[in-house]
Amino acid sequence: MMRTRPLKVALLGCGVVGSEVTRIITTQTADLAARIGAPIELAGIAVRRPNRVREGVPQELLTTDATALVKRGDIDVVIEVIGGIEPVRTLITTAFEHGASVVSANKALLAADGASLHAKAVEHGVDLYYEAAVAGAIPLIRPLRESLAGDKVNRVLGIVNGTTNFILDKMDSTGAGYSEALDEATALGYAEADPTADVEGFDAAAKAAILAGIAFHTRVTIDDVHREGLTEVTAADIASAKKMGCTVKLLAICERARDGRSVTARVHPAMIPLSHPLASVRGAYNAVFVEAEAAGQLMFYGPGAGGAPTASAVLGDLVAACRNKLAATTGAGESAYTQLPVSPMGDVVTRYHISLDVADKPGVLAQVATVFAEHDVSIDTVRQQGKDGEASLVVVTHRAPDAALSATVSSLRKLDTVRGVASIMRVEGE
Amino acid sequence: MMRTRPLKVALLGCGVVGSEVTRIITTQTADLAARIGAPIELAGIAVRRPNRVREGVPQELLTTDATALVKRGDIDVVIEVIGGIEPVRTLITTAFEHGASVVSANKALLAADGASLHAKAVEHGVDLYYEAAVAGAIPLIRPLRESLAGDKVNRVLGIVNGTTNFILDKMDSTGAGYSEALDEATALGYAEADPTADVEGFDAAAKAAILAGIAFHTRVTIDDVHREGLTEVTAADIASAKKMGCTVKLLAICERARDGRSVTARVHPAMIPLSHPLASVRGAYNAVFVEAEAAGQLMFYGPGAGGAPTASAVLGDLVAACRNKLAATTGAGESAYTQLPVSPMGDVVTRYHISLDVADKPGVLAQVATVFAEHDVSIDTVRQQGKDGEASLVVVTHRAPDAALSATVSSLRKLDTVRGVASIMRVEGE
Repeated sequence: MMRTRPLKVALLGCGVVGSEVTRIITTQTADLAARIGAPIELAGIAVRRPNRVREGVPQELLTTDATALVKRGDIDVVIEVIGGIEPVRTLITTAFEHGASVVSANKALLAADGASLHAKAVEHGVDLYYEAAVAGAIPLIRPLRESLAGDKVNRVLGIVNGTTNFILDKMDSTGAGYSEALDEATALGYAEADPTADVEGFDAAAKAAILAGIAFHTRVTIDDVHREGLTEVTAADIASAKKMGCTVKLLAICERARDGRSVTARVHPAMIPLSHPLASVRGAYNAVFVEAEAAGQLMFYGPGAGGAPTASAVLGDLVAACRNKLAATTGAGESAYTQLPVSPMGDVVTRYHISLDVADKPGVLAQVATVFAEHDVSIDTVRQQGKDGEASLVVVTHRAPDAALSATVSSLRKLDTVRGVASIMRVEGE
Repeated sequence: MMRTRPLKVALLGCGVVGSEVTRIITTQTADLAARIGAPIELAGIAVRRPNRVREGVPQELLTTDATALVKRGDIDVVIEVIGGIEPVRTLITTAFEHGASVVSANKALLAADGASLHAKAVEHGVDLYYEAAVAGAIPLIRPLRESLAGDKVNRVLGIVNGTTNFILDKMDSTGAGYSEALDEATALGYAEADPTADVEGFDAAAKAAILAGIAFHTRVTIDDVHREGLTEVTAADIASAKKMGCTVKLLAICERARDGRSVTARVHPAMIPLSHPLASVRGAYNAVFVEAEAAGQLMFYGPGAGGAPTASAVLGDLVAACRNKLAATTGAGESAYTQLPVSPMGDVVTRYHISLDVADKPGVLAQVATVFAEHDVSIDTVRQQGKDGEASLVVVTHRAPDAALSATVSSLRKLDTVRGVASIMRVEGE
């Protein structure tokens, strides 16, 4: 039997995602009502520019007063697709205080301050959902939080930023340099006018923080995430990767330490073997590998951004929040009971691929090998190449702590026979 | 604040999956308690052979009286990993009547009679969960039912049976025939002594029925699913597929008709292009593509069977069922409001790859082409090959209703110049 009084929904922000959310709520009304068990009604949409033309968005619902909208008191669920920290944090908190559950797509805010928002939601007996904050349409937060709730996740490894994947894919397939590939991404609308958040890895780092917290039942903020962007990846790096049967991807990697007593989270470019399923993730797609003790290796793949895919994730959360409202309950919230500390990057165990320009004379390899040995870093392969009187050495290491690998590189730079370190890149996915 | 009285769990069946479930419940006690919000206690395990040695399974919990166990009245959640229709249906119904939620891995039962079980669960205010029934550890039912609850799924296309995927992968990589590949699968434990359920497609058809029902919010039983196994797939079929840049997979395909007024569900071998992500799913792995209107194309990949992966899915459901018990609520149950009818195979629009042995004389191609035209089936490509006075024609069609394609093949068989139809296979994934 369906309740006839509709659940009221307020929307904060009406850009690409918000317009699509509005379109679905206003056109799929019968389906949404059947799935929720009650009709829903869009009660108001807060925007900055009410006079902008938004096709399909009911003009009479627009308001510039977001605060008044979340304070109305009759709103059941607030959908937040504005982004950024303030005023959004205050708006969400105010919504909680007035009894509304919140569905957000805001990775920056969740990665900065998820714990206090979750606490506020619990305090007011409402839900906080944010599937759309990580990897767009791909169900990832709900599977991690619910489907794998009885398993032990050891590792999350993924491509979670479509812009940088588009750029790297372009560099890989055409041999283009970084700037050229970025220009193409911008022209095609895959990169924003200011691409910093994407290319410097801030966007991926926020997602890594959210995923690590949920996967390991602890608290991880963006400040805990080691972050390197892809602005220094060169066409030569991509070519070196190819020679090794690898490709370069910007990866978000969250790991539980082998002793189980700490976790790490990091974002950086890395070489992965072409045989790894993540290597074939093309264009602006996202894909995330999850390794759990009982489940084994799972992969989730799909469009990581865009209005409609992000709206799909928002709507899934909206249906869940509305069902919970009807049942006067709340869903699975934050789980941070393990309180595992986040270790620094130096503790991460990984492998390096290092290209050195060296003097072309006897004994150089011995000198270089000695430096690796002094830092307890074991060498997997060495490739020597001569070019015009100079030579290059490409070294791939076995697994070692990042601190030891990094110290090795510092020592190599000091050798007279090493003219320069042409590139350093981590090797993952083996 | 954690409740101290434990939730009581009964386990029906203690084979490969049940032992693994027992191991996790009895060893991960603190983690499970933290995630649920209350400790859980394994209260009894019903088995047929109590004297069999089961490492790590507490002997004192074993009973042969499953009925008495589900009738105890103090059981919060019953986990069913016995399989088959009876006595399991009666046991589950009895569990509901005594106030227990049920977590099941039983695809056969759910595909035969899911609707009445769901109704019983609703009647008694308890949950029925069965993530483990489809694609092992891969979260699929929860993402379809919850994450995509605000979206419109148009298609589910997947490899949902590991045994047959192992066999086809082996045939593809070694050129082996079906029997030889099946023998190897049996020797390695990927196929059961009686492989009928797998190789004849019954297992995949049950999963297709479950997925179609959830994806399209309607009721689909295994009897509605068109089913063809892989026993007739030959080494020659696989070789033909390779020539076309394809591989052969046993696919479960659930589709909403273009007019939205009906759905179809089918299981059969099909050629898919090597560039399709499902083509690279190797060995006993499973992978499922989901196409939704807003989300676009999503893929879920992972181990589709095995004790530990299946236990992971069971435990995820157990945590959800226990949380709901604590909150005195139930989760999202059956959603079958669309009541869309299931159309027969003849209505499915697909493509055929047909190999004909024909007389090597002029006019044969014209005759054959006429037959296709008479049935309104448009030809995409034709390849002619001569061999020892005879000739073969390989025809790939454009998309047409299966009934028309099938009628075309019947007519071709009647032509004097057609000596035989060497193989017919559908082409999917484009």
